[in-house]
Amino acid sequence: MLQSLTADQLTALHARRKCLTSLVDFPVLLWSGGSPSRNFPANRYPFRASSHFLFFAGIPIVNAVIRLEGDRLDLFMDEPGPGAALWHGPEPTRDELADTIGADSAFPLAALADKAEGAATLAVQSPNAGHRQADILGRTVAQPTQANGIDGQLVRALVQARLTQDEASLEEMRRAVDVSIAAHEFGMAATAYAETEAEVRSAMEGVLLGHNMTMAYNSIVTVHGEVLHNEVYHHPLAPADLLLADVGAETQSGWAADITRTWPVSGKFSSTQRDLYDVTLAAHDACIAAVKPGVEYQDIHLLACEKIAAGLVDLGILKGKAEDLVDQDAHTLFFPHGVGHLLGLDVHDMEDLGDLAGYAEGRERSDRFGLGYLRLNRPLQTGMVVTIEPGFYQVPALLHNPALREKYVEAVNWERLADFADVRGIRIEDDVLVTETGAEVLTANLPCEAEAIEALVAGT
Amino acid sequence: MLQSLTADQLTALHARRKCLTSLVDFPVLLWSGGSPSRNFPANRYPFRASSHFLFFAGIPIVNAVIRLEGDRLDLFMDEPGPGAALWHGPEPTRDELADTIGADSAFPLAALADKAEGAATLAVQSPNAGHRQADILGRTVAQPTQANGIDGQLVRALVQARLTQDEASLEEMRRAVDVSIAAHEFGMAATAYAETEAEVRSAMEGVLLGHNMTMAYNSIVTVHGEVLHNEVYHHPLAPADLLLADVGAETQSGWAADITRTWPVSGKFSSTQRDLYDVTLAAHDACIAAVKPGVEYQDIHLLACEKIAAGLVDLGILKGKAEDLVDQDAHTLFFPHGVGHLLGLDVHDMEDLGDLAGYAEGRERSDRFGLGYLRLNRPLQTGMVVTIEPGFYQVPALLHNPALREKYVEAVNWERLADFADVRGIRIEDDVLVTETGAEVLTANLPCEAEAIEALVAGT
Repeated sequence: MLQSLTADQLTALHARRKCLTSLVDFPVLLWSGGSPSRNFPANRYPFRASSHFLFFAGIPIVNAVIRLEGDRLDLFMDEPGPGAALWHGPEPTRDELADTIGADSAFPLAALADKAEGAATLAVQSPNAGHRQADILGRTVAQPTQANGIDGQLVRALVQARLTQDEASLEEMRRAVDVSIAAHEFGMAATAYAETEAEVRSAMEGVLLGHNMTMAYNSIVTVHGEVLHNEVYHHPLAPADLLLADVGAETQSGWAADITRTWPVSGKFSSTQRDLYDVTLAAHDACIAAVKPGVEYQDIHLLACEKIAAGLVDLGILKGKAEDLVDQDAHTLFFPHGVGHLLGLDVHDMEDLGDLAGYAEGRERSDRFGLGYLRLNRPLQTGMVVTIEPGFYQVPALLHNPALREKYVEAVNWERLADFADVRGIRIEDDVLVTETGAEVLTANLPCEAEAIEALVAGT
Repeated sequence: MLQSLTADQLTALHARRKCLTSLVDFPVLLWSGGSPSRNFPANRYPFRASSHFLFFAGIPIVNAVIRLEGDRLDLFMDEPGPGAALWHGPEPTRDELADTIGADSAFPLAALADKAEGAATLAVQSPNAGHRQADILGRTVAQPTQANGIDGQLVRALVQARLTQDEASLEEMRRAVDVSIAAHEFGMAATAYAETEAEVRSAMEGVLLGHNMTMAYNSIVTVHGEVLHNEVYHHPLAPADLLLADVGAETQSGWAADITRTWPVSGKFSSTQRDLYDVTLAAHDACIAAVKPGVEYQDIHLLACEKIAAGLVDLGILKGKAEDLVDQDAHTLFFPHGVGHLLGLDVHDMEDLGDLAGYAEGRERSDRFGLGYLRLNRPLQTGMVVTIEPGFYQVPALLHNPALREKYVEAVNWERLADFADVRGIRIEDDVLVTETGAEVLTANLPCEAEAIEALVAGT
C-alpha cells in the first residue's frame, strides 16, 4: 500500500533533513535494509526499516536508499519485478514513493554508485547489505559503534538530529502510547479470565495488532518479574502472584511506546506486595517530579536508588541511611538496572549507536554494579522523551550470591526480607517528555496508583 | 526454561538420528543459529532455530551445534555468561540440555574445531554464522541450494530423513492444527464485531499466542484475497466482502500448521460468491480424494486445475472443454499458483533447500505459467504431509493484462465474468497426511462447506 504523509509530517521531514545536512559537509546515504529470513527465504520476519532511514524518509520502504545533501533528497530503489503484483498486489512505483516522501528525484539502485562518492553512511542490518554497501562506496563500512572519519561525524550528527523530538514524532508516539495504554487496561481486565501468562500476553498484543500496530519489542508478561528480560509465557497464574507486563506498541512508521505495569493476579495486592509497590511508586513519582531541562539523567537514576533505599529502610528490609546505602550500592540488590532510557523510533532510542546517543561526549559507563547498566547519562533537554521505570526485584542470582550476602550482611535484614516472599518483581514505567517547564507524562492516562490498578484488574 | 521431552519423543529423535547417519559415511554438524536484530542489538526478532537442528535435537537452543556420527550425538554450546541470570533468569546448563535431548556428551563451542574434521554441514541463517562455520570447518560453506561434495550428500540425506513424518512429529503437527482451527473459528465468530482486517487478525493470532504458540508464517487476513501473499491488514471490512484468512500455528518445538478459509463478512455468501466458493470446494474435495501413496502430486495439481476449469465452464465464465482449457493454461487466469506443498517443521517444508526436497531428483520447475509455481513434484509417499489449497482469484494484473486478454479472448466470457465482481479471492486449504490407504485430513475438524462456514461466522 502507499502510506500517505500529512503536510505537517512532510514539513517535519524537510526540517529533519535540513537539520542533518546543516551539521555535515558531505552527502549522506541511509539504507532502509531488508527483512531477514526466519527459516527459509520466502518466510521472512516482518520488515522493520532502519530507524535512521525512517527518521528522514517517514515511511518504511524495503531495500531503499536515501541520499541527503543540502536541500536535496534522492530516493534509490528498484521497482518490483513483473511477478510481484501477483504475490504482493499492486505496489506503489518508485516515482509515487518519491512523491510521497517529498524526494527531489528517484533512481534505480544501479544509479547509486555514481552518486556515492564522498558520501558517509551507516552499516545497516540486512542480509548481505554490508557487502553491497562496501561495493557501492568502494570502501569498508564499519559498525556504527566503530565508525570514524566522515561516518563517525555522521553518527554524531544523527545523534544531534534525533535526540529531541519534533511535533510530528510526538504525534506518532502519542498514538503508540494510546494504544499501549488500551493494551495494558485490557490485559489487567483479562487477568481474571486467564490461566497463563500467555493468555494475558495474547490479550495485550491483540489490542496492538487490532489497531494495526506491532510490538516495539518482545513483550514481557510474566509472574517472574525478577527476570528482567523474561520472554517466556508458559507459567500458570496463581492468585498470590504479581503479574508484570512490559508491553509497548510501534506505529506503522516505527515510533515506539514503552510501558510497564505490575498488578495482582487476584485483583488485590497483599499488604507486603502493597508496601513494596508503594516504595516503587514513590521512586517513580519522585523521578518524574525531578524531570526538567538541564537536570542530569544520572541524578534522576540516583534519586530512584535513594527513594527505593529509603522505602526499604522504612520497611525494615535495609538498615542505615538511604544515602549511605546507595553509596555502597546496597539498593542494587533489589534495583539492579538503570531508571530508564531514551525513547523514540527505537524503544532504546539509537542504541544501535552504542552509547554515542545515550552518553554525553566523553562519558563512559560506570564500573559500579547497577550504575553500569544505566543507558542514559546526559543532561536532559527540552523535547527529549525518556522512560522512568524504577523497580523492585528479588533476583535469586543476586540474593543467594554468597559474596553479596557477605558484603551486605549488615545492610540487609534478611529475616525481615523473608516476610516479603510474595514479591518477585515490580516495575512501574512511564514515558516522559521533557518540556521547557518540566515534564509531560505521555502515559499519564494509564494510572499507576495501587487502588487504581486494583480497580482496572477488577474491571470496575 | 528447560523444555522437557517425553520418552516417545526421545525415541523418535534417536530414530531420526540413526536414519540420517545410516545414509552418510561422514560426521554431520548442524547449527541452530541465532536471532537477528530488529533495529538495535538488544532488540531481536524472536529466535527460530534451524529446522534441521530442531528435527534431530527436538528443542530450540540458541547458538548451539549438534554433531551426529553413528549412534553418537554431541552437543556444543557455551554456558550463559555471569550476568545472564539477571536479565534472562536461571537457564538450563549445557549438561542439563544435553541430558534433555539425549546427547552423549556436551562441550563448549571452542571444542568444535577439533571435532569438525571431515564433517558435512549446512549454511545456517544467523548473524555472522557463515564466517564462524567457515572458520571451524576450514573451508567455505555454500548455501544449501549450491552445496556439493559431502554437504550436497548431506542435503540429499536430510531430504530423505525429513520427507515423511513420524508419530512424534505428527503429534506436534496435530497440536498446531488444533490451535489453528480454534483460531479460524474464533476469527469467523469475531468478524461480526470487527471493522478492519487488523481486528480479525488480532483475534486469530490471539488464539495462537494464548496457547503459547507462534505464527508459522506471516498471517494473511484480507478482503483482498487476490493478493496471494498479502501481509497488510489496514482495509476496512465491508458487508459484501469475502475475508480470506491463511493463518497457522507453530509449536514451541517448531512444527507448523497451515490453514486457509474464506468467509463472507456479512455471514452469508452472495449467490455469485457461493457459486465460486463451491467451484473451489469441489476442486479441494477432488484433490483430497485423489491423495494416496504413489500418486504424482503434480497430477493432483492438474486435477485441481481441471476441476476449477470445469466449474468455471459450468458457470459460463470459461468456454470449451476443461481439459483443453487446462492445456492452454486458461485456468491460470483464476488459479495461478500451485495446489500445495510439503508441510512439517517449515510451512513450506525444507524450502531452504530450494527444490531439492520438493522436486524428485532430475525434475525441474516447469516454464509454464502457473505450473512453474508448483512447489511439490514427487510421487506421494505414506507419511508425507502436504497441503491441498486450490483457489479462485481475480487478479487485476492478470485479468487486465492486454496480452492475456488477447490470448484468452475465446476462452473467457468476459461479460459473464463481470457478474462475479464481488469475488476477489477464495482459497480453501487443508493439511493432509498421506496414509497407506489414502489420506487423513489433519484439519478435518474445521469444516469447509459453505453452510458450515456461514454457521461459524454467525456463531451458531
